[in-house]
Amino acid sequence: MTTIGLLHPGEMGSMVGAAVRSGGSRVLWAGEGRSAATRKRATDAGLEDAGSLAALVRASEVIVAVCPPAAAAELAEQVSKLRFAGTYVDGNAVSPATAREIGGIVEKGGAMFVDGGIIGPPPVKPGTTRLYLSGKSAERMAALLTAGPLAAIVVPGGPGAASTVKMAYASWTKGSAALLLASCALAAAEGVEESLVREWKISQPELSARAESAAKGNSRKAWRFIGEMEEIAATFAAAGLPDDFHKGAAEIYQRMAIYKEGPAPSFADVLRALAPRRPA
Amino acid sequence: MTTIGLLHPGEMGSMVGAAVRSGGSRVLWAGEGRSAATRKRATDAGLEDAGSLAALVRASEVIVAVCPPAAAAELAEQVSKLRFAGTYVDGNAVSPATAREIGGIVEKGGAMFVDGGIIGPPPVKPGTTRLYLSGKSAERMAALLTAGPLAAIVVPGGPGAASTVKMAYASWTKGSAALLLASCALAAAEGVEESLVREWKISQPELSARAESAAKGNSRKAWRFIGEMEEIAATFAAAGLPDDFHKGAAEIYQRMAIYKEGPAPSFADVLRALAPRRPA
Repeated sequence: MTTIGLLHPGEMGSMVGAAVRSGGSRVLWAGEGRSAATRKRATDAGLEDAGSLAALVRASEVIVAVCPPAAAAELAEQVSKLRFAGTYVDGNAVSPATAREIGGIVEKGGAMFVDGGIIGPPPVKPGTTRLYLSGKSAERMAALLTAGPLAAIVVPGGPGAASTVKMAYASWTKGSAALLLASCALAAAEGVEESLVREWKISQPELSARAESAAKGNSRKAWRFIGEMEEIAATFAAAGLPDDFHKGAAEIYQRMAIYKEGPAPSFADVLRALAPRRPA
Repeated sequence: MTTIGLLHPGEMGSMVGAAVRSGGSRVLWAGEGRSAATRKRATDAGLEDAGSLAALVRASEVIVAVCPPAAAAELAEQVSKLRFAGTYVDGNAVSPATAREIGGIVEKGGAMFVDGGIIGPPPVKPGTTRLYLSGKSAERMAALLTAGPLAAIVVPGGPGAASTVKMAYASWTKGSAALLLASCALAAAEGVEESLVREWKISQPELSARAESAAKGNSRKAWRFIGEMEEIAATFAAAGLPDDFHKGAAEIYQRMAIYKEGPAPSFADVLRALAPRRPA
């Protein structure tokens, strides 16, 4: 039985932990200093509280990191300082350059690095969620982490390749959702929403529903997407592609970040938040 | 019978002219100084050559302008200087601010201004193409220009409203096509295209075909889209929305502008043109 440390049990991380646990591994988390909501998610997922990060690092053969992109390098630093010498799987939505930086950090501490990227919702139902992995130990980690509803898939090309798959994938899904909301916000702000929606009914019959579901599905999570859009922009720039699309998308999700908590906004609320009418 | 001047019979303009002619109007064009290709299109569409622009202006009660967005204001200036005193319909893909500027130009010369925006391909088959119109004489122009396969639709809100419908519509169609091609170009440039395409097969089964059709459908026309993306970016900025998406899209179409003439490129060619591998 392999002991895996899961950092940290957020919405995605807790379900990844539960999936991996269902495959027969022991899964630890580090409860020290975490919120009551995180504790509840970890407990519901059947994860075992190791207490401190240091205790988790000592007890784990593998660490799987799942956290917001902006926190990924800092988390790797903390683990590296504790001289973690197992295999560190970074599953975060970061650019390949950030992934390789994280690899350097954990290797300095003595660990082996595997780059990862998760595509799909938190794995609850089979077939929805894939963990892409690249780097030297990717095959071994794929065998270990393919468990329950989670499928792990190896990407050739070394550290950074798995993150690139994630960046390219999300560049469309989250980038196009932001663009579509911006298009609607323009029409609403300029008073031509009805004409646009009528035209869509004729020539783009799926777009109105898609826009409303982009608002509904992303308003609570938008705050988390800002950092991811910045990582995607950096990925595009490093490949010689324009980084503007995802700078725009980051700005859209920034304006939606007000919906992190509180009641779900209406579609019209979201459009107004995106293009607030300034006093004439 | 109303005499309508059509400036100029490009791919879109010639078919708009033919549609309007099929409704019983006499449609003129100004052949002086135009290319053989334009003359062939105009002749095939059954348009009547008035000779010079001045002759067209003298003979026309209505002028319909259909040209690349960057040429729209200059064309209005030329018509205005010739003291055109009929109704000037600007059907170009310009921002509402540019449309109102064009309105001011032609009104100074004595004309009435109607703002317009065309959505759909050149009108050949019924039901594909709509000419949105706004401004004081929009109703009258809609009755005149709804003809054959072309449907004209009034947008409430005065000059600029019809252009805004066009901008909001194209912000998604052409903006998302550029974004999708950029996502593919990233995956190709970084060597993970196969993994991305496999993931798409599972979770976004329509995207590969959509990307290939975006490359195929837009490579010859990309040069024309650059100015339109710039007009959309300006429209977003004026509404307080991020203009980055369409600055990025303009850059993508700029890189595809090399395909204006010559043989149609392969999908792989287009992706390479978007993210050229630099020497290591």
